[in-house]
Amino acid sequence: MFESAELGHKIDDASYKKRAAKLRADLLDAQYAVLEAARFPVVVLINGVDGAGKGETVNLLAEWMDPRHIRSVAFGGSTEDERARPHMWRFWRALPPKGRIGVLFGSWYTFPIVERVAKKMSSSELDQDIEEIVRFERMLTQEGALLLKFWFHLSKEAQRRRLRALERDRLTRWRVTKTDWRNFAKYDAYRKVSERVLRLTSQGDAPWTVVEGTDSNFRSLTVGQTLLDALHRRLEDTKATQKSRPAAPGPEATSVDELHMLRALKFEKRLSKEKFGGLLEKEQARLNKLSRTPAMKRHAVVVVFEGNDAAGKGGAIRRITGALDARQYQVIPVAAPTEEERAQPYLWRFWRHVPPRNMFTVFDRSWYGRVLVERVEGFCDRHAWGRAYSEINDFEEQLVAHGIVVVKLWLAITQDEQLRRFKDREKTRFKRFKITADDWRNREKWGAYEHAACDMIDQTSTDIAPWTLVEANDKHLARITVLRTISSALERAL
Amino acid sequence: MFESAELGHKIDDASYKKRAAKLRADLLDAQYAVLEAARFPVVVLINGVDGAGKGETVNLLAEWMDPRHIRSVAFGGSTEDERARPHMWRFWRALPPKGRIGVLFGSWYTFPIVERVAKKMSSSELDQDIEEIVRFERMLTQEGALLLKFWFHLSKEAQRRRLRALERDRLTRWRVTKTDWRNFAKYDAYRKVSERVLRLTSQGDAPWTVVEGTDSNFRSLTVGQTLLDALHRRLEDTKATQKSRPAAPGPEATSVDELHMLRALKFEKRLSKEKFGGLLEKEQARLNKLSRTPAMKRHAVVVVFEGNDAAGKGGAIRRITGALDARQYQVIPVAAPTEEERAQPYLWRFWRHVPPRNMFTVFDRSWYGRVLVERVEGFCDRHAWGRAYSEINDFEEQLVAHGIVVVKLWLAITQDEQLRRFKDREKTRFKRFKITADDWRNREKWGAYEHAACDMIDQTSTDIAPWTLVEANDKHLARITVLRTISSALERAL
Repeated sequence: MFESAELGHKIDDASYKKRAAKLRADLLDAQYAVLEAARFPVVVLINGVDGAGKGETVNLLAEWMDPRHIRSVAFGGSTEDERARPHMWRFWRALPPKGRIGVLFGSWYTFPIVERVAKKMSSSELDQDIEEIVRFERMLTQEGALLLKFWFHLSKEAQRRRLRALERDRLTRWRVTKTDWRNFAKYDAYRKVSERVLRLTSQGDAPWTVVEGTDSNFRSLTVGQTLLDALHRRLEDTKATQKSRPAAPGPEATSVDELHMLRALKFEKRLSKEKFGGLLEKEQARLNKLSRTPAMKRHAVVVVFEGNDAAGKGGAIRRITGALDARQYQVIPVAAPTEEERAQPYLWRFWRHVPPRNMFTVFDRSWYGRVLVERVEGFCDRHAWGRAYSEINDFEEQLVAHGIVVVKLWLAITQDEQLRRFKDREKTRFKRFKITADDWRNREKWGAYEHAACDMIDQTSTDIAPWTLVEANDKHLARITVLRTISSALERAL
Repeated sequence: MFESAELGHKIDDASYKKRAAKLRADLLDAQYAVLEAARFPVVVLINGVDGAGKGETVNLLAEWMDPRHIRSVAFGGSTEDERARPHMWRFWRALPPKGRIGVLFGSWYTFPIVERVAKKMSSSELDQDIEEIVRFERMLTQEGALLLKFWFHLSKEAQRRRLRALERDRLTRWRVTKTDWRNFAKYDAYRKVSERVLRLTSQGDAPWTVVEGTDSNFRSLTVGQTLLDALHRRLEDTKATQKSRPAAPGPEATSVDELHMLRALKFEKRLSKEKFGGLLEKEQARLNKLSRTPAMKRHAVVVVFEGNDAAGKGGAIRRITGALDARQYQVIPVAAPTEEERAQPYLWRFWRHVPPRNMFTVFDRSWYGRVLVERVEGFCDRHAWGRAYSEINDFEEQLVAHGIVVVKLWLAITQDEQLRRFKDREKTRFKRFKITADDWRNREKWGAYEHAACDMIDQTSTDIAPWTLVEANDKHLARITVLRTISSALERAL
């Protein structure tokens, strides 16, 4: 994959100057067209060997285009904030919104390659990381991102010469460190590992562009022109009416009887008020104790609440937070996405709230909106919610792999009980804010929501992040079940 | 993922009878509609735990539909023919063509799950297999296949009861083997491994359907109805004009100078006829000796010839085959695909010819047609050739992993030399069959073909299967280079 980046490409200064001037103007125009259309984000990855001009290129792009709409992020060692969260968190934070260009200097590729070369990672572990990357990038491109991946390459001899030349020049001497030479000594291993990574991650919608790094004129024009062409093509693509291509969403789940997870629940179970009082105290004390164990420092907790309208999510959440130190938790109510959030891949707004270690985050509604309300109401197409199940499973796997305990609770009530509660809310003045015309409308689609919920449970109740279905016709019982489920999950993890 | 398949779904016989009659008629209609449209193949995977009714369901589908257009293949232990080839070969052979339904009983999932449960495979090796499966299935669905994956599930208790019931009945006793009980003893491990595999391979375009296997009425209706719904939806999809969806092919390679791999070749090198004679004899003897070493029994050789028209592929191939025993090689000339081949995923027609161990297969033109002629002539769209690079890399990796030595040769001549040879062919009577109007037309697109070839080399010249560019203006030199390249590759492998 590196052969044609060792040919000795070179552009003389005179023609560079002429072509760069035009390219620069074109790029600026294209950047503004992308900004105006605001239909897709542009993610540019800059990776490759040391001394091949990665940094200069990042600077150049910012210089050539309007730097206000371009954001370069360099990833070095991770910060404390970043280390406290799953490793992809820092990259999610750096993603540009639609209409903007994000230049990532070093990326999700750096760590696996470096670790593998240092033999801190086995070949099959590397493959696991590669698979994660392929899934992540597929999600990005399916969400509409234009992803450009540049690999700056130097032959072994060219890298040696380059490092020596930098050292000779007093102005650039500081840029060559001992680490650079240590890395150089492992050139062959780097090349081998990089080749494998590039090959396995070069997909149709996100191929690698390998750039010979020797001549700065050549590499600048190559990166600039590749970016420009890609912007033009994508702008045309999103403008033109697409030629029909086989849309091939997968089969949907079919139900042939009346039995499903939600109907199998036992709604008649009850817990008296007296018993509830005692149990609540006991369960809150248990959770509180768990939240203060030293082992919590290595973990975090994400609690997801979904369920029927008026199932008592709010009340249950208050019983959780009541057991916790106010500095140790956050409740995230999930409503319609903000403008900023709509400009990002779907899961972005949840990644924002992934807790650092030792923290509880409670989501009142969650990323499951995609396969519930968005599916039922037609806010997204079948392709989008169809692939969301596996995207969500991948997301939760990353949380769990980082030591986060993921508790997913579905609060279920019967249709009759919901009607009773809706009427009660309308009658009671201080509850009236809780009921809207939307609630009544959703109620009419009870069957569709139930169907979506069952599919969701089938597809996303996994060993590592199972769903717990909570019978919530009796609020007391539901609250105790919620507390117990969280504490049990925590006890298993700690 | 298995919860709702442990609820005890049951359909009484009376309603089953009524519904099955209608379902059966509908399925037959749908099957004929699929056959007539002949737009996509239907691949049905039947997997799951023992005793859950997999076999019965396979039989039932054949019974319900027209068995002439449905093909069921059961995968048990592999045959000698199959073991001699990469493990995916047997599955490629079983793929149904467009318009047909293929039912695969046991599939690419069986081996990894069984091996992992038996601890013959590590967790990260399992993940590598899963990644391979995800890539393979993505290729299938992107090539248009409708892929339905059924997992037949029984709870532990239900499986125990089922095996006992089968044993009690004299008519079914033979079906319960010691292996079944041994597997049952590992029920929990199976469940855990299967859950992981299902989760990671349940993608938007190929999700799993988990079927509770206890009640035969229920499972028959579920599989039948799911299949029917999927057929209907896909038939509508391919009929209706598609709503435009963001087509997001990746960026294309851009070239900013005149230098590339093909231009960097040294065409002026020559080899005299006298020297050629001696060298040819020596190199053919070397290859012949290699072909007869005992180590060849563990390997096979695939030689791919691509290059400019009139570059001398035929002559070079004859010098290879001249060195080999006629029983040990096959030459596959690749022209336009046959009707049978067009009804299959692109790579199918090459999988057919993957050699067993100890064999040489020489492809005169190859799977690279997709990213050369098909790209340049617009026979396939940008999406198709854009993703072909990684599909081809995956394909070749599977060959190499099986011990096959893959030698890829690009025979390059200059434009002038081609003109000379074309004219010579027109003048010489016995060569006239070798030159057609197509050759002249292709020649006019020299630049486009060169561009496609360079992209191809950049994307598919890999460590495990590198391209060798052969300067072929001098036929003698080219033939010696070809022989040497093959022998050296063989020596490295043996």
